[in-house]
Amino acid sequence: MSLNNIYFILVRPQMGENIGSVARAIKNFNIKHLRIVNPRCNWPNQKALAISVGAKDVLKSSKIYNSVEKSVGDLDIVFASTSRIRKINKETISITNLKKKIKKGRKIGILFGPEASGLSNDEISCADYLVKIPSNKEFSSLNLSHSAIIFCYELFQHFSKRKSSYKTSYKSSIAKKSEVEKFLSFIIKGLDKKGFLQPMHKRQSMIRNIKNIFHRLNLSEQEIRILLGIFSTLNKINKKT
Amino acid sequence: MSLNNIYFILVRPQMGENIGSVARAIKNFNIKHLRIVNPRCNWPNQKALAISVGAKDVLKSSKIYNSVEKSVGDLDIVFASTSRIRKINKETISITNLKKKIKKGRKIGILFGPEASGLSNDEISCADYLVKIPSNKEFSSLNLSHSAIIFCYELFQHFSKRKSSYKTSYKSSIAKKSEVEKFLSFIIKGLDKKGFLQPMHKRQSMIRNIKNIFHRLNLSEQEIRILLGIFSTLNKINKKT
Repeated sequence: MSLNNIYFILVRPQMGENIGSVARAIKNFNIKHLRIVNPRCNWPNQKALAISVGAKDVLKSSKIYNSVEKSVGDLDIVFASTSRIRKINKETISITNLKKKIKKGRKIGILFGPEASGLSNDEISCADYLVKIPSNKEFSSLNLSHSAIIFCYELFQHFSKRKSSYKTSYKSSIAKKSEVEKFLSFIIKGLDKKGFLQPMHKRQSMIRNIKNIFHRLNLSEQEIRILLGIFSTLNKINKKT
Repeated sequence: MSLNNIYFILVRPQMGENIGSVARAIKNFNIKHLRIVNPRCNWPNQKALAISVGAKDVLKSSKIYNSVEKSVGDLDIVFASTSRIRKINKETISITNLKKKIKKGRKIGILFGPEASGLSNDEISCADYLVKIPSNKEFSSLNLSHSAIIFCYELFQHFSKRKSSYKTSYKSSIAKKSEVEKFLSFIIKGLDKKGFLQPMHKRQSMIRNIKNIFHRLNLSEQEIRILLGIFSTLNKINKKT
């Protein structure tokens, strides 16, 4: 069952109760993998365990990360849950179309932000798509586990219907997010050396812009090699001149 | 809006937190009417108010009844949420088919049982249909507000116009294909100068690979400028070294 390829990732969650509640929710729909980035409550957390009821196994096997990038490093496609529309050149889809963006055999990550604020623009820069749950415009902030269970429900429906999809015969496999990140550090390092990412106070937003571009590309491993080749060529040969 | 004809009815709920959580959930999806049959916690309930966040109005306008029959007396069609299949001669539908059973202009009630036990067979006797949320067979008991929000989500979708994607207020407009091509000629020229696109018989396929990458990006004009900046920086500053 392909639900085994789904990873729910809670970024900076504030309350143990919500983490426990999400654990129960994902187990209700046969999803096993929970990742947590920089929890802001104690961890392991007694309230989380109490509220998860029969989903203690999900909590116990959950993994803790210290950055969003690391938490998605081994995944292929990343969706970020958002309740607001952002000024970012990244496609925002309705959750009702989530299934169309999922590809067979790929490892899928779903990012959820903190209860109060949601994900920051930096935290969504590694996402391929933003996903919105259509809701009451005047009262659109859903509880964390409520958002999560709607994703579970949609994913479960998708994978239990077993819709057929077409496999492309394209040979090179999609690069893991960690490979994209490696490539990005490479260019950022190069650009830093050359003073491109200045003034300093604009550096972070310039980096975010660059990350947004390359993360939404679904680059294949071959394409990463091509881009690396291009960038290092532009560097090297000039040095000889 | 026909969501105004939807009534959520909690039967013998045990915990104020869950009632508050359901209030928030239904308001998230523009549903206004909450009814409660024989609550087993104090009522009004402070925990319910605290957890409902901005949905206090839903709690304050909720109505209390002392029997299921009375709570559905003025409604036209009644659905009862159930997690188990019962030995009862009553149609059990999947929630994905709920919308097919809803008729225009009719008042619709949705019954939810107590957290631990669900609705009794007596309590569902007034229902037209039983409704099941497809889920993990080995762990199918959903939290009360989680079941409720999945109903909300389905009903909201049914009654509202489907948006499949959202417009961002991101300012920079998508670059025309001709601008992408101009950018591509720029890098290809640069790469040619440096002998990257060799041997000659592979040149065309290398160029095709590069074009494939950048054309599928939906680059904005701003992003094109960023990329141009990156490429020409990598070129220029080196010359000075």
